Amino acid sequence: MILDNINSPQDLKALPIDKLPELAQEIRELIISTTAENGGHLAPNLGVVELTIALHYVFDTPTDKIIWDVGHQSYTHKILTGRKDKFATIRQEGGISGFCAKNESEYDCFTTGHSSNSISLAMGMAEARDQRGEDNKIIAVIGDGAISGGMALEALNHAGDIETPLLVILNDNEMSINHNVGALNSYLSHIRSHPKYSKAKNNVHHALDRIPWLGKHLANFISGFKNGIKSLLVPGMFFEYLGFTYLGPTDGHNIKELIEILRQAATIQRPVLLHTITVKGKGYEPAEQHPYNWHGVEPFDIATGMPKKNNLQLTYTSAFSESIMGLAEEDENIIAITAAMTDGTGLAGFKKKFPGRFYDVGIAEQHAVTFAAGLANAGKKPVVAIYSAFIQRAYDQIMEDVCLQKLPVIFAIDRAGIVGNDGYTHQGIYDISFLRTIPGLTIMAPADARELRMMLRFAVSTEQPVAIRYPKALDRELPVTISEIELGRATIIREGSDLCFFALGSMVSVALDAAALLAQKGISAQVVNARFAAPIDDLTLRNCAANCHGRIITVEENVQEGGFGVACQMILAHNGAQVVVAALPHTFIPQGCREHQLDMMGLSAERLVEMACNNWFKE
Amino acid sequence: MILDNINSPQDLKALPIDKLPELAQEIRELIISTTAENGGHLAPNLGVVELTIALHYVFDTPTDKIIWDVGHQSYTHKILTGRKDKFATIRQEGGISGFCAKNESEYDCFTTGHSSNSISLAMGMAEARDQRGEDNKIIAVIGDGAISGGMALEALNHAGDIETPLLVILNDNEMSINHNVGALNSYLSHIRSHPKYSKAKNNVHHALDRIPWLGKHLANFISGFKNGIKSLLVPGMFFEYLGFTYLGPTDGHNIKELIEILRQAATIQRPVLLHTITVKGKGYEPAEQHPYNWHGVEPFDIATGMPKKNNLQLTYTSAFSESIMGLAEEDENIIAITAAMTDGTGLAGFKKKFPGRFYDVGIAEQHAVTFAAGLANAGKKPVVAIYSAFIQRAYDQIMEDVCLQKLPVIFAIDRAGIVGNDGYTHQGIYDISFLRTIPGLTIMAPADARELRMMLRFAVSTEQPVAIRYPKALDRELPVTISEIELGRATIIREGSDLCFFALGSMVSVALDAAALLAQKGISAQVVNARFAAPIDDLTLRNCAANCHGRIITVEENVQEGGFGVACQMILAHNGAQVVVAALPHTFIPQGCREHQLDMMGLSAERLVEMACNNWFKE
Repeated sequence: MILDNINSPQDLKALPIDKLPELAQEIRELIISTTAENGGHLAPNLGVVELTIALHYVFDTPTDKIIWDVGHQSYTHKILTGRKDKFATIRQEGGISGFCAKNESEYDCFTTGHSSNSISLAMGMAEARDQRGEDNKIIAVIGDGAISGGMALEALNHAGDIETPLLVILNDNEMSINHNVGALNSYLSHIRSHPKYSKAKNNVHHALDRIPWLGKHLANFISGFKNGIKSLLVPGMFFEYLGFTYLGPTDGHNIKELIEILRQAATIQRPVLLHTITVKGKGYEPAEQHPYNWHGVEPFDIATGMPKKNNLQLTYTSAFSESIMGLAEEDENIIAITAAMTDGTGLAGFKKKFPGRFYDVGIAEQHAVTFAAGLANAGKKPVVAIYSAFIQRAYDQIMEDVCLQKLPVIFAIDRAGIVGNDGYTHQGIYDISFLRTIPGLTIMAPADARELRMMLRFAVSTEQPVAIRYPKALDRELPVTISEIELGRATIIREGSDLCFFALGSMVSVALDAAALLAQKGISAQVVNARFAAPIDDLTLRNCAANCHGRIITVEENVQEGGFGVACQMILAHNGAQVVVAALPHTFIPQGCREHQLDMMGLSAERLVEMACNNWFKE
Repeated sequence: MILDNINSPQDLKALPIDKLPELAQEIRELIISTTAENGGHLAPNLGVVELTIALHYVFDTPTDKIIWDVGHQSYTHKILTGRKDKFATIRQEGGISGFCAKNESEYDCFTTGHSSNSISLAMGMAEARDQRGEDNKIIAVIGDGAISGGMALEALNHAGDIETPLLVILNDNEMSINHNVGALNSYLSHIRSHPKYSKAKNNVHHALDRIPWLGKHLANFISGFKNGIKSLLVPGMFFEYLGFTYLGPTDGHNIKELIEILRQAATIQRPVLLHTITVKGKGYEPAEQHPYNWHGVEPFDIATGMPKKNNLQLTYTSAFSESIMGLAEEDENIIAITAAMTDGTGLAGFKKKFPGRFYDVGIAEQHAVTFAAGLANAGKKPVVAIYSAFIQRAYDQIMEDVCLQKLPVIFAIDRAGIVGNDGYTHQGIYDISFLRTIPGLTIMAPADARELRMMLRFAVSTEQPVAIRYPKALDRELPVTISEIELGRATIIREGSDLCFFALGSMVSVALDAAALLAQKGISAQVVNARFAAPIDDLTLRNCAANCHGRIITVEENVQEGGFGVACQMILAHNGAQVVVAALPHTFIPQGCREHQLDMMGLSAERLVEMACNNWFKE
């Protein structure tokens, strides 16, 4: 195997170009076999094997910097930069990250995971380089989905203006996670459909740029003329208007062609956008056929492409999926909005059933929320389904465009809490805290899938902004009847008198387990399903404190700071109660096994029992 | 006066077109005289008098909807839609808002104030309209500064794709608040510099669009060719690439021409971008000459253009301004970044003195923060100066791109707290709460301008992310020596033994006043300048509780939820202390006089005295 001898980009550079396709094949196989074991972002990684090889072949990393937008396509990069031997641990607790991670390698400039920030990061590094008079290369690699995110467009606009040398590689595979949307994508499609990628066009383009008699005084007229001619010849005028020199489109699976054009790009002392066309899932038939099903995958059988665990258990996501379709059938005003996560958020069925009431706005969380505000202002009931980690992008819009206007927008916040293998950037552990800062926003968390359905129905019936947050987890049905939802009302699901677990959402069943364990010790624990993180049921909370000797343990899958428990503490501050807050530590939490991590951080039945005993029932 | 008889758009429509310029003149005079009294956004409003008249003349508001981006240019709109008689109260406590306000008029679709959201809002309303089969017009008016904000670009990208009829009016006055930046602006300049705005061009453009023999099979080739020809003839190809029909540029002060082109735009059943060129400050000489000085103004003398109060007292902003220049002189790694607020944030001097280390990225807070992360990652010490209300836009970027990476970016957060006349959307009263959710971010608040300088110096010396928040207020120097800043350490500035005010930033001097008043009653109050909202000095806090009978009043100019006081309460939860939290109510707060509003909400010396007495010293 060629790969056996590749432990750094230096080893790679020692290979002749004609050996590189063979290396690409070996890497591809390693990625497929590892992802089949661990799960991960298969299709995006298969798409950029050649591009990554070409980049490390041409550029001098880590002196030259490559910034991978999102970073979920960095597997080949990791394999080539000294992490081949750890590659089997990818996405596992204690293993290497499925994204770029600064603490893992000097080749990873940033710890990434959220989309559309690579051009801004690259620009900052490029300006710092210029100020020091250095000349290393800075390269951002960004997908055609991510480039339509607002901050990527802000950065393009700025970069084209300040003219620092910078290479943006637009990895165009016609999709972000689902098929791309947006006018920019239609524009890219148009470029892709040009009969043949042509170097000749780029040459003409540069000849035009160099016309020597283009004096300043003629510039306006000629430049208009030149742009006219250019757009006959150069496909990427949109990016030229933004101040970039456009190169491409080029075949992202032809290593030789890539090396050639990257070398050309490296000589241009201004912002360059290189447009490369890749096939998502390249080299693994099932992934090429259904690239969005193969974007992020669970462990699978390579031969059949079937998941190893055929999991038919109910998840919160699938409960949301069914429920929202049922509600939409009853109420034609219900609209569903996703930001490039149709499948992940469970809206594929809705899209199919109600195509006219479904909007995928692309990777554009800010616009998703404000677009929903516009719909709600005109009488619609939009449901915006966004993962907890990504709705952070729209904090301002939730506050200003939805809640200040008192508009009935429903936020369906999936992946709230510990997310497992995706780690740091994908943890949904801050939402209760930042959403609680927003006046007028009702925040709910269901204790099981039945309750999620009831909360959605309740949310649709209110005329106010509501957020419902639920975990990436299987449903575990509570052994109790679920009572009607009332605004700001908790529900007592187990009676007890020695202490009270005032638990929220995913932690209610954990608290029930803890109460059962305590009962074995002769301790009688009440369990309350709090349901609302805002407004909190202060009446029930006070009663529970009164009935349980003031012993309250709040339980939530969210950081302590600004969270549910602290708010309960505030309510009982002058009550003489002793409120113990069980919550996640205020830190960035790496990848791992959700159950194990929750236990490590105090959020398992056993840890809650310890907490109760240590505080009040020491033997 | 024509204006005397105009109380609604219906009255306006009854006028012949040739009377409209006279009306514009009358409105302009009313705006100038009122703003001279009340202060306000003068230059932006003078720029759109004719455009607003033309819009209400052509369209049928409030059935047709006009959404003003930011809304600070809505004065003419307010005058024409029944608020002429209340216009003298604009921006005053209890008066009409200086922005659009839903609760004020059915002609204001949204309560606005944050930039770049109008296209998203308009799209939502347009889609809702389409789904109901209605045909009213939806119009977004957005400046050339605001359109480069990320979410506006996200919305353009989406709108051009879904093809719903929608009119976006690009009000191009060559500046947002300062001179605009960005490649898009250079592109607009290029359009503006075309020898003559020409209707002929638009006609050619539409003729090209209508070429009947453009069969689908020829589309790719012909469309490339057509775009080439178009860009010779149509100036706005950038927007055409985004899927809009581009009209313009048109003279935004020629009412007749505006009416004509608006009528044309109204007939096009798809997204249209109308590019209109206006002069910011039009009709008031000093404002035309120095439009960015006249963007937002304090009361002024109309004849001389001089401010009525010649205020030479030190503000926090000017202290920041001087201090950051001094620090930059000592350390060449210091970089200043603003998002279109060079003057407002006090960076005009820095820009002049260190042009190579100053970046105005335009209205693009997300990019500003992540660009800073890139700079910091390459060894620079960026200072990002953004108002509290607007840094909300970059919540995700502060968390993911700065704090997760542990990068030494300094956030200089001006206008933190109650802002006075700007009201709802501009209040800086959530920052402590949302910033405290972010792990690893140090948050400081200075008690006077001297301390702001010391905190900046301290921040520059640390190698970690730091936010410093300070109010829109005059400096009031504390009557004490300011001790050195130590990370996470508060400082006791008045000894006392009956209770302790644990006060933050702007509230320290208020707490001192309260302590003085309490002394007159024989009550001895300790006053602590907390300095840090994160990490909070828990040691000092515990000691103070121990020394003051457990009686603590925390004081902060921030909402209670998730704020400083609640965090102090958490620290003392199991301590037996009684922590009373003096903070702002958890609500959206309208415009008003800052001191009066603070008093109304419990944050004056008198109210703090009452709070102490009611809790512990009832007579």
